[in-house]
Amino acid sequence: MAQRFAIVMAGGSGTRFWPASRAKRPKQFLQLADSDESLLQATVRRAGALVGKANVLVVTNERHEAATREQLPKLALSNLLLEPDARNTAPCIGWATAVVQERDRNALIAVLPADSHIADEMAFGVTVERAMIAADSGILVTVGVTPTRPETGYGYVETGAAISDGVYRVGAFVEKPDLARAESYVASGKYLWNSGMFFFRADVMLAAIGRNLPAIRAFANALVTTAPKARAALIKEKFPELPSISIDYGVMEKEREIAVVPGNFGWDDVGSFSAAWQLAEKDADGNAARGEALFEGARDCYVSAPEGKLVAMLGTTDLVVVDTADALLVMPRSRAQDVRKIIDALNATGRTRHL
Amino acid sequence: MAQRFAIVMAGGSGTRFWPASRAKRPKQFLQLADSDESLLQATVRRAGALVGKANVLVVTNERHEAATREQLPKLALSNLLLEPDARNTAPCIGWATAVVQERDRNALIAVLPADSHIADEMAFGVTVERAMIAADSGILVTVGVTPTRPETGYGYVETGAAISDGVYRVGAFVEKPDLARAESYVASGKYLWNSGMFFFRADVMLAAIGRNLPAIRAFANALVTTAPKARAALIKEKFPELPSISIDYGVMEKEREIAVVPGNFGWDDVGSFSAAWQLAEKDADGNAARGEALFEGARDCYVSAPEGKLVAMLGTTDLVVVDTADALLVMPRSRAQDVRKIIDALNATGRTRHL
Repeated sequence: MAQRFAIVMAGGSGTRFWPASRAKRPKQFLQLADSDESLLQATVRRAGALVGKANVLVVTNERHEAATREQLPKLALSNLLLEPDARNTAPCIGWATAVVQERDRNALIAVLPADSHIADEMAFGVTVERAMIAADSGILVTVGVTPTRPETGYGYVETGAAISDGVYRVGAFVEKPDLARAESYVASGKYLWNSGMFFFRADVMLAAIGRNLPAIRAFANALVTTAPKARAALIKEKFPELPSISIDYGVMEKEREIAVVPGNFGWDDVGSFSAAWQLAEKDADGNAARGEALFEGARDCYVSAPEGKLVAMLGTTDLVVVDTADALLVMPRSRAQDVRKIIDALNATGRTRHL
Repeated sequence: MAQRFAIVMAGGSGTRFWPASRAKRPKQFLQLADSDESLLQATVRRAGALVGKANVLVVTNERHEAATREQLPKLALSNLLLEPDARNTAPCIGWATAVVQERDRNALIAVLPADSHIADEMAFGVTVERAMIAADSGILVTVGVTPTRPETGYGYVETGAAISDGVYRVGAFVEKPDLARAESYVASGKYLWNSGMFFFRADVMLAAIGRNLPAIRAFANALVTTAPKARAALIKEKFPELPSISIDYGVMEKEREIAVVPGNFGWDDVGSFSAAWQLAEKDADGNAARGEALFEGARDCYVSAPEGKLVAMLGTTDLVVVDTADALLVMPRSRAQDVRKIIDALNATGRTRHL
């Protein structure tokens, strides 16, 4: 029987969580939804439970090496792939799949993004098992999340005909819709949120990459035929030249036979501090705090404070307050999608030390 | 001619400026209205210009000795009186007046609170000169500020008959009024804000204290007849036993002949962060910052940040944000009078290290 592996993709560099996230410490390293695990730590923990800890690979940008090793001290260094450049998901998956295939030719692989939150892990386990079994039959499988609202921040997957119990052919992948379209997607009952998770056999994925993205396949081939000592140089030289393209767009949409497994496991992309507030445990007045906060007549606020700092919220409503050693952000929750504007303003005024 | 002296009263322990002010660093030590001087430093600078730097005495609580000496490095130690306990203004003025009288029997003294802001120093100079000349004739003089709004946070002084040009008999001292009363005071044109400044000859004040507060007079007498080396012990023992009473209530209201000099010199008690925002220089959107702030779509906000910290305000309106190393306060400007509630909550929950 083929071994199972997980590839945790932790290369994100989101800016919507400044100042908690920084260029050197993006979202996946933050404890956004839970008080004692970062999104990355939770993803790796789940992956380890699903495929065995020794079979979990983490792919991240090389500038996140220190943060990754700090958060995952037990991760074997041979299971940590460091990208010299951000090239979207297809090069990452091609490389990691080739590495896994060296260990087991017909390895069964789960690709899991490191920056989402999963509330119902039992339901998640059921969905993953279904997807793994479908993938073992030789098709590329994605997991789609049953939408609970007409979210315009996610891509969608259209379900087609049933292949087997709980497994459907993919009708189409669709980009982030406008609100009217999102509402019609939800009303139709046929559309799922694209979770960014993929399940496949190593040989099947590498063949599909070979058909659609030959440069990435060639890179993967070159890598495994290169002596281990010479690989770092090859990666440094060739990886940044690979096409920067997502696996969705570069492979999944191009292949004829793709399956989707619908799931309903409390998935959230945690796209902003507003989402973090939604997910967080709140007091009777709707206030959530990471760190020490004092709410006095405050309602529906989110506070994140560093160790040793007290944040007093007096009579505030619907505010987000994120404090760090050298930068503090205050905004209404409704502005949580606009944090990018602060990043832009800091760049524009040369205050890059706070980025 | 009698020498002139100034007694700067810096004993306050206000809590309305937490977390910028702390038990060990009350309001007078803060740069609330100006970017490079604390209220205390500005008061001492003005006092020095009025009476000569060597003739400025500062009275504060002994626990503020370090902060006072740090802010006033040129103050002679013989001009720094350290109260072992807070006993309101009458014991403080009695003690300081006795100390001044040792230097000049008929010294002319200005008592100036260290925690107010004066915008128009030229007009202040004119008012002080008028008050000093009136005091030199042998009466106790206060300065009243022409009210610009029906403020309920201040005491008022009713003006009576004119004594000389710009000098009036005091009709009555009145406590902080309710709004209706404050409005009628302002409408009458006869009431002034009680500035807490007093002007008198040393001998005149000590005689008045002797008539009304004999225990304080006895303490002052005992002090000047004690050898300098033994005075510290006397102060430590006797000062805390003195009646805790204001000079207004204990002396001024009881004396028959008190004068008031009306003045209009941009006086502000700086009673809250909202007042600090009012006084501060603001950008085109009404935002004021002490320290490094980035306002992005923010309006009418006040930010105070420590050195090296960046505060980003995204889309906020009418907020006060006061950051310090170990505590951060966020509130609507309209709640600035309620900071005490945070102090109370911290006390109630035993989090006294942030006080």
